[in-house]
Amino acid sequence: MSILSADIQSQLAGQGIELPSWAFGNSGTRFRVWTTEGTPRDPFEKIADAAEVNRVTGLAPSVALHIPWDKVDDFGALRRHAEDLGVALGTINSNTFQDEDYKFGALTHEDDRIRRKAVDHHLECIDVMDATGSRDLKIWLAEGSNYPGQTDMRARQDRLNDSLRTIYERLTGDQRLVLEYKFFEPSFYHTDVPDWGTSYAQVATLGDRAMVCLDTGHHAPGTNIEFIVMQLLRLGKLGSFDFNSRFYADDDLIVGAADPFQLFRILVEVIRGGGLNNPDVAFMLDQCHNIEAKIPGQIRSVLNVQEMTARALLIDQPALQAAQSANDVLGAQAVFMDAFYTDVRPALAEWRASRGLPDDPMAAYAASGYQQKIEAERVGGTQAGWGA
Amino acid sequence: MSILSADIQSQLAGQGIELPSWAFGNSGTRFRVWTTEGTPRDPFEKIADAAEVNRVTGLAPSVALHIPWDKVDDFGALRRHAEDLGVALGTINSNTFQDEDYKFGALTHEDDRIRRKAVDHHLECIDVMDATGSRDLKIWLAEGSNYPGQTDMRARQDRLNDSLRTIYERLTGDQRLVLEYKFFEPSFYHTDVPDWGTSYAQVATLGDRAMVCLDTGHHAPGTNIEFIVMQLLRLGKLGSFDFNSRFYADDDLIVGAADPFQLFRILVEVIRGGGLNNPDVAFMLDQCHNIEAKIPGQIRSVLNVQEMTARALLIDQPALQAAQSANDVLGAQAVFMDAFYTDVRPALAEWRASRGLPDDPMAAYAASGYQQKIEAERVGGTQAGWGA
Amino acid sequence: MSILSADIQSQLAGQGIELPSWAFGNSGTRFRVWTTEGTPRDPFEKIADAAEVNRVTGLAPSVALHIPWDKVDDFGALRRHAEDLGVALGTINSNTFQDEDYKFGALTHEDDRIRRKAVDHHLECIDVMDATGSRDLKIWLAEGSNYPGQTDMRARQDRLNDSLRTIYERLTGDQRLVLEYKFFEPSFYHTDVPDWGTSYAQVATLGDRAMVCLDTGHHAPGTNIEFIVMQLLRLGKLGSFDFNSRFYADDDLIVGAADPFQLFRILVEVIRGGGLNNPDVAFMLDQCHNIEAKIPGQIRSVLNVQEMTARALLIDQPALQAAQSANDVLGAQAVFMDAFYTDVRPALAEWRASRGLPDDPMAAYAASGYQQKIEAERVGGTQAGWGA
Amino acid sequence: MSILSADIQSQLAGQGIELPSWAFGNSGTRFRVWTTEGTPRDPFEKIADAAEVNRVTGLAPSVALHIPWDKVDDFGALRRHAEDLGVALGTINSNTFQDEDYKFGALTHEDDRIRRKAVDHHLECIDVMDATGSRDLKIWLAEGSNYPGQTDMRARQDRLNDSLRTIYERLTGDQRLVLEYKFFEPSFYHTDVPDWGTSYAQVATLGDRAMVCLDTGHHAPGTNIEFIVMQLLRLGKLGSFDFNSRFYADDDLIVGAADPFQLFRILVEVIRGGGLNNPDVAFMLDQCHNIEAKIPGQIRSVLNVQEMTARALLIDQPALQAAQSANDVLGAQAVFMDAFYTDVRPALAEWRASRGLPDDPMAAYAASGYQQKIEAERVGGTQAGWGA
Repeated sequence: MSILSADIQSQLAGQGIELPSWAFGNSGTRFRVWTTEGTPRDPFEKIADAAEVNRVTGLAPSVALHIPWDKVDDFGALRRHAEDLGVALGTINSNTFQDEDYKFGALTHEDDRIRRKAVDHHLECIDVMDATGSRDLKIWLAEGSNYPGQTDMRARQDRLNDSLRTIYERLTGDQRLVLEYKFFEPSFYHTDVPDWGTSYAQVATLGDRAMVCLDTGHHAPGTNIEFIVMQLLRLGKLGSFDFNSRFYADDDLIVGAADPFQLFRILVEVIRGGGLNNPDVAFMLDQCHNIEAKIPGQIRSVLNVQEMTARALLIDQPALQAAQSANDVLGAQAVFMDAFYTDVRPALAEWRASRGLPDDPMAAYAASGYQQKIEAERVGGTQAGWGA
Repeated sequence: MSILSADIQSQLAGQGIELPSWAFGNSGTRFRVWTTEGTPRDPFEKIADAAEVNRVTGLAPSVALHIPWDKVDDFGALRRHAEDLGVALGTINSNTFQDEDYKFGALTHEDDRIRRKAVDHHLECIDVMDATGSRDLKIWLAEGSNYPGQTDMRARQDRLNDSLRTIYERLTGDQRLVLEYKFFEPSFYHTDVPDWGTSYAQVATLGDRAMVCLDTGHHAPGTNIEFIVMQLLRLGKLGSFDFNSRFYADDDLIVGAADPFQLFRILVEVIRGGGLNNPDVAFMLDQCHNIEAKIPGQIRSVLNVQEMTARALLIDQPALQAAQSANDVLGAQAVFMDAFYTDVRPALAEWRASRGLPDDPMAAYAASGYQQKIEAERVGGTQAGWGA
Repeated sequence: MSILSADIQSQLAGQGIELPSWAFGNSGTRFRVWTTEGTPRDPFEKIADAAEVNRVTGLAPSVALHIPWDKVDDFGALRRHAEDLGVALGTINSNTFQDEDYKFGALTHEDDRIRRKAVDHHLECIDVMDATGSRDLKIWLAEGSNYPGQTDMRARQDRLNDSLRTIYERLTGDQRLVLEYKFFEPSFYHTDVPDWGTSYAQVATLGDRAMVCLDTGHHAPGTNIEFIVMQLLRLGKLGSFDFNSRFYADDDLIVGAADPFQLFRILVEVIRGGGLNNPDVAFMLDQCHNIEAKIPGQIRSVLNVQEMTARALLIDQPALQAAQSANDVLGAQAVFMDAFYTDVRPALAEWRASRGLPDDPMAAYAASGYQQKIEAERVGGTQAGWGA
Repeated sequence: MSILSADIQSQLAGQGIELPSWAFGNSGTRFRVWTTEGTPRDPFEKIADAAEVNRVTGLAPSVALHIPWDKVDDFGALRRHAEDLGVALGTINSNTFQDEDYKFGALTHEDDRIRRKAVDHHLECIDVMDATGSRDLKIWLAEGSNYPGQTDMRARQDRLNDSLRTIYERLTGDQRLVLEYKFFEPSFYHTDVPDWGTSYAQVATLGDRAMVCLDTGHHAPGTNIEFIVMQLLRLGKLGSFDFNSRFYADDDLIVGAADPFQLFRILVEVIRGGGLNNPDVAFMLDQCHNIEAKIPGQIRSVLNVQEMTARALLIDQPALQAAQSANDVLGAQAVFMDAFYTDVRPALAEWRASRGLPDDPMAAYAASGYQQKIEAERVGGTQAGWGA
């Protein structure tokens, strides 16, 4: 009998992790963007790659788009293309960090014209959402300042709130606004939404369909991220995750690669707080595959989330609670760690096979010939990256 | 003519910084508490020392008490003692970190008896406030956990909210509850109020007289503290400062000693946000003088705050705003730094003398003979420290 | 057949982890030292507790002593006591952080008298080593400064070198000097041996029997510790480990508790660099059990090291090297993580049983009645802590 | 009479800070490289801009080149161009981070061909040095790995040593090799030269003309950089500084902008250790002016170094040493801070004027019309950046 109970299997079966279209394009650092053969040239090819991840894992039913990187003439056609490949179009991500006008700010800019332009970009993103059927508008703001004294941080907060309100009011139906926060980069002194508190304080003034996005790589060193997960779930404001991992700054490495135990703790709090398979809490990746193969990198990532979810579900909750209530520190820790150290991989492989999926998705992809095919076919054109 | 305008002088004249009674007692690290001659043996002697700081600086009109360290039979007598020496009794600080019952929590403890005991301690602190005429009850919670899995962080938040509500409801008149946050220590995995967001989310549910206390040493490495100052002022929830400085963790060094420019930036945001000489925003020190002389350490500290306030007030605001609006990064920075680099010390010395205060408070204290007097008189008894 | 090959079993069989006598005494933070029933009152009782850890794990053949905390009239008697219980006396740790004379330094002090006193203390420690048969003198220096400008860091380095040389020259036979480094605490601005580079530069001038001690909790946030392990092994200067774990500062938590994957990576480099079961590289714990049970805390700790060593030994090295040579990032990572995620616990339990040890040492200890016995017997007297 | 004594003036007169040619080109983050009007198109224009910084400050007598970004057909012509404008060509910086071959390493690469190619690039840089008359070859290595297990860190150290030796042996006369270290970026798990200890251990094996380069932005959070300055000077291995400042990672902001007091402390240790105006210790900038004006950014930077050097020279050393020897913590700190808080700017302005330099270099540049001229003239072509 599997170590994965029917209940656990049921919960795992409900799990879906959204892939970022940009993970299939080239990325890098300020020093260099390395290229790889077979990289997509347009959004249609990105979605084809994403669908391949879903095909071998059953874990990635939707793809997030980034506007304007993924702008196409006919979003309806893109949507049908995705559906034909078995995936949906997901969250729409806006971009206010690459237009010369936004050098000193976008939604916070002092100049009404530029701020309005930035707001209008978001309204355009909502138009895209209407066409793609996407629910979420995700806003990550690159704005801030590099030097103390450069700008008036306080006035920017007020302008930000005003801009967000205008955008929020344009949403219809079950559409949501999800506001990401980030500690630093590309701004080096202050960012306008640096921490969960700021994102929370901003979205709390907007309404029920404004939520916080937690990117696991966007915190100061040593921050207890699972505490924030717990708190946002408690406050009813955790809208989505951007999963990745990091050793230093916003490294955007494969989720679970840098600190697997941290991912475990995060998922424990997600489960504890009712965030698993809760439609209000979207799971997404936001990663860069600078030097590793991109499609396998995404496969590895969703598997990491799945495996760690399984481990977190394995916790013997009654035993844990008993030990916690008894203040039995080592006893509680033992229950907790027992789940983490359990090797769920064989059981997951078996379970995948039972559902008609490859037991080893990495091997299945390698054996599929897809990589060779795209390397052969995608010759010429401009490889997609952060500029297109 | 002084570089300090009449307006600046007026603002400086209104400044008062509360001293912590415990700064006059011995303190140290887990490795060693060093002793010094002349250390007070009781609250009356601590207040006498604090009054000496005020005598030579005119900057320290009140003294915060810590319960039970400063518990006396007759708080009315202590209040008269303080008033006779020209100072007031200020904020009352509770202590839930030294009783065996609190090993695993106090206001968050799962055991109703212990949680009630911790709440009752705070009610007793409010009784003390009634007797001393203090306005603020400051709560810093040492509770948390050392190991992942040890405890249920989510349930603790809910219990914390319940405990705080009971305490808050006992307040009368203009009394306030001020909730401090701290990143880590003495708990090493999670603390129950780790960041400003948690403190804000908690006090926001209580009412208008529940505020956040910002201790400048309680943040993750690299945190932009002045941004938090700005945000809390914007949200109307900055109740008080615990000033100190740090290089690494909660070092509790003299304010302004580790990063003077950070203190400048904090005070700039205080002024920008209307927090200077605003009765809603209390200025306090929370420091340890582990190896340096205590009374001079406190004198140096309040002078550091005063000098940096003067520098922050010197900013040519119209010029700064013009440069900011023009996105003239270097121009704005130049205006900002010009104030920081201006040597305000001679003008402050002159201004102090004009108000009947020593121009050089450190020298005045050294010449006063007070230190020699207390070293001679305070022989025998037990020196005050963190345990008494 | 066990997943642990005969070769792996052989390597595991050779593993020994030295326990710190002080882990059995009370410890805490500057805020509070909690007490526990059954805590030893003297070095004999500490050694009895340490022997109990060894009895149930077979992993802890020696006990490090701390002078003066473990000073006894007759070290020969203490040695026989240990041997009777099946353990040896190990590393001698000096202490220059609790005498009033050392408030501003010991081996670096400007005052010749105090510096000489600190050197003499180390010579006395070597006398103890002669009596106990210990090989290593471990020096951790608490000295440094709290404020910029307080002291002349450069002159202190030179005096430190001079002091260390005098101590080193007193060593005989195979005795060694091992110099620990620490980033901060109890000093808050500078420490005299803050990083591996300084420790290395100092011991390199002394001779072959002067080595570096790497305490896993003594680094700046984000430091790649396994890189240092690799480098010190490469330079032939890794003398010993102080194992523990941390989330923030020098938390001294149970090894492997905060970041199990980091412990794995460290042990991988130990094996790669020839440091496993290499007599030149001592494995020790240096932990505090502030709130958890002490003897089980030590049992858990040595088991964590053993389990993680087993995982590290499981790496398919030829496959790893092949993937590395092919720059197959994900392939190499897969081999690496496969070992980490393998559950070695059942095989280790079986292997322990095959060697006449309890398969579950934690359960064996709990069932032994030892804890109840010491709680009943150790009544009265003063519990051991960091002062005694 | 000036607060700057004749001796201080003499020391200031000897100060020269090398400018990086690349500071005049465009730079940015992975998110965006903003452009500015008037940006140079080739090395000749970069040097013209650098010479302008020297013209108004008298502080920037040389310009560092980056190969291949500054590769020209005739380095003799470039040298004459520089000399005609009153500046010299300085340090030659190699680049092994932008060629596809170097994706997985250069001087450490396992593939002999690639490693040899990287070595050859450095030999070519030495050829350039011969042509430009440069003394220093500065090596910053971007290499490392992004994932644990990806590579064999130990073998890379050995290959690095081998590569460096080959390069070192090609140096002639007074030419030097200076090895920079960096904590992270662009590699996100390990870098091959992460810390001063590694750089020191590597260059120590090469010979007297191999030194360490300390970039002030390349350390883990909280690192005491001035301690490293002290230690490298003590060991005779501090070859050069790359000055800049940072709040978070390698932000490459204007030196002194993020933490002026840290720059002060660094310069105090430079002076203490005999590093000021010591030809063995080169002062350079390594900065990015992502959003601020570039030439004024460089002027501001060299002025910051000059002003802070003046402050550091103002320390009353006998008084400081007396207070230090007496362990008068607050007294020593007072002497130290007195120098920091002294406003040296008026005296420096006067002194500059006395030497025929503009008293206000920023204003002089603004008034010179140079910026308008280059914006008008430099139309068309490709603006220089990190790629050219």
